[in-house]
Amino acid sequence: VRVTLLSGGVGGARFATGIVDAVGAGALTVVGNVGDDLEVLGLHVSPDLDSLLYTLAGVGDSERGWGRGKETWNALETVEELGGEAWFRLGDRDIGLHLVRTEALRRGSPLSEVTARLAAAFGLETALLPATDDRLRTWLDTPAGALPFQDWFVRRGHRDPVNRVRYEGADSARPAPGVLEGLREADLLLIAPSNPFVSIGPILAVPEIRQALSERNVPCVAVSPLIGGQAVKGPAAEMLARLTGGTSAAQVTSCYLGLIDVLVFDEADADDADGVAALGVRPLVTRTLMSDRDTTRRLAEAALEAATVTQ
Amino acid sequence: VRVTLLSGGVGGARFATGIVDAVGAGALTVVGNVGDDLEVLGLHVSPDLDSLLYTLAGVGDSERGWGRGKETWNALETVEELGGEAWFRLGDRDIGLHLVRTEALRRGSPLSEVTARLAAAFGLETALLPATDDRLRTWLDTPAGALPFQDWFVRRGHRDPVNRVRYEGADSARPAPGVLEGLREADLLLIAPSNPFVSIGPILAVPEIRQALSERNVPCVAVSPLIGGQAVKGPAAEMLARLTGGTSAAQVTSCYLGLIDVLVFDEADADDADGVAALGVRPLVTRTLMSDRDTTRRLAEAALEAATVTQ
Repeated sequence: VRVTLLSGGVGGARFATGIVDAVGAGALTVVGNVGDDLEVLGLHVSPDLDSLLYTLAGVGDSERGWGRGKETWNALETVEELGGEAWFRLGDRDIGLHLVRTEALRRGSPLSEVTARLAAAFGLETALLPATDDRLRTWLDTPAGALPFQDWFVRRGHRDPVNRVRYEGADSARPAPGVLEGLREADLLLIAPSNPFVSIGPILAVPEIRQALSERNVPCVAVSPLIGGQAVKGPAAEMLARLTGGTSAAQVTSCYLGLIDVLVFDEADADDADGVAALGVRPLVTRTLMSDRDTTRRLAEAALEAATVTQ
Repeated sequence: VRVTLLSGGVGGARFATGIVDAVGAGALTVVGNVGDDLEVLGLHVSPDLDSLLYTLAGVGDSERGWGRGKETWNALETVEELGGEAWFRLGDRDIGLHLVRTEALRRGSPLSEVTARLAAAFGLETALLPATDDRLRTWLDTPAGALPFQDWFVRRGHRDPVNRVRYEGADSARPAPGVLEGLREADLLLIAPSNPFVSIGPILAVPEIRQALSERNVPCVAVSPLIGGQAVKGPAAEMLARLTGGTSAAQVTSCYLGLIDVLVFDEADADDADGVAALGVRPLVTRTLMSDRDTTRRLAEAALEAATVTQ
């Protein structure tokens, strides 16, 4: 079985490890969000691709939840001492990767090629693809003005309510090499329990990706990032409430209308099943908290099974 | 007494600390070599300016002799794991500085301005100036071809004999702000015990710097980097032998003809005194090995005294 997963960073990366446990690393293709990429200190940073890379390679920091394990922070400490931009937390090992990537991009390699090279160096068997090689950036319109994603998310701690999400460059962005093949040749498609607006939204904003998903011949299963109407981490619930009027599983479903066949969501939201079904999407209620390797694998298996049944 | 010192990296930086001990940090202006600057991993590295900065700020690594103390190497280790350029040894704290400098240069700040800002952040009272803000790069013509300085020095371990030294960009390079003032308003001028070809040569290759030195109204004292015809470290002796025919103090003097009034050199080379004098330069023989703070300060005082006597 060949699986293609659309994913954001931390939560999606964890879900991806469950899929790997269930179907094997070589059977999975991950299409990662690049809308939260940024240039900081002259480095091109791709936080979601890196979360996927580090997590799938087993070199991530499981306690902190992001970045690399056995990390040190001396470069950034120096940057701070010297009055440089230190608001975006970059560890020393992490910076090593950004230096290599930035240099390769500057020499003309597309992001997909650089990502493949980095993944190979980490021994990754899973295909890791950026949604696009083109410049695509998520912007948030807030009462404080329009903010680039990381300014809103990290620098201001996502405290500004979001009136609108925009994906700069998306209209003209082409899917990276392998993405359309991954979507068309997979036996099933998955959308990770990532933020629908700022993690999955930028991927779906690439016209040919959205089109490929809406024209799919295989089932597509999304996993809700909310449990009891709350996000395990991050601003998904606040955004959903403000942008769709609520935080039910039906509201999550509304973000993916026409693109998914099943929504997997938590037992805590079991009452929302009718609302999901009313939108023409099959509700699948299970436990969705990925607290350890077992629960993560079980969630992955539930999503895979839902797809198989649908097929 | 106001002192202006022309200096390369490690040895020159140590000598500079002796001058600081002797006359106070605020009385010294250092004009540093930029001919060995390089771009590596997208970072602008100024090894000599950094040696001066770290050493004068007291944050250098005294055992290794270069780079910062309490250094870690995780970024470069990662670069190496990922197949990036890892031949130029950059520590994590060091990289922090390069990130800040590179970003500032990219935004249009001249090197002198960035250097002043870094020096201020380290609490430096000594004025630290790059010889020029313009691009000036040292090239070595060798039997293996023309090599950029760091390729020759670090990557190939300065094993290739040098037929000729060239300073790319020097002809059109202007002295950085403050350099000419430093040379014209000082009470005495010093040339550090650095390599005449690849450390001091690039500074003197800037036409207006050479002119200011040759038109000086105050004494200029150079300290030979050789002891007993040998360099304490580095390729100075081999270069001098090949490019001037020998390694005597007279040969060192010949590198600075018309630009210095006194050459300070080691007791081991006392026999060379007549040869130096024959070139119209006053020989001053003393112990020149800077093995600790005391000997370094004594050498600095000998050079300062030589200038005063000459005056």
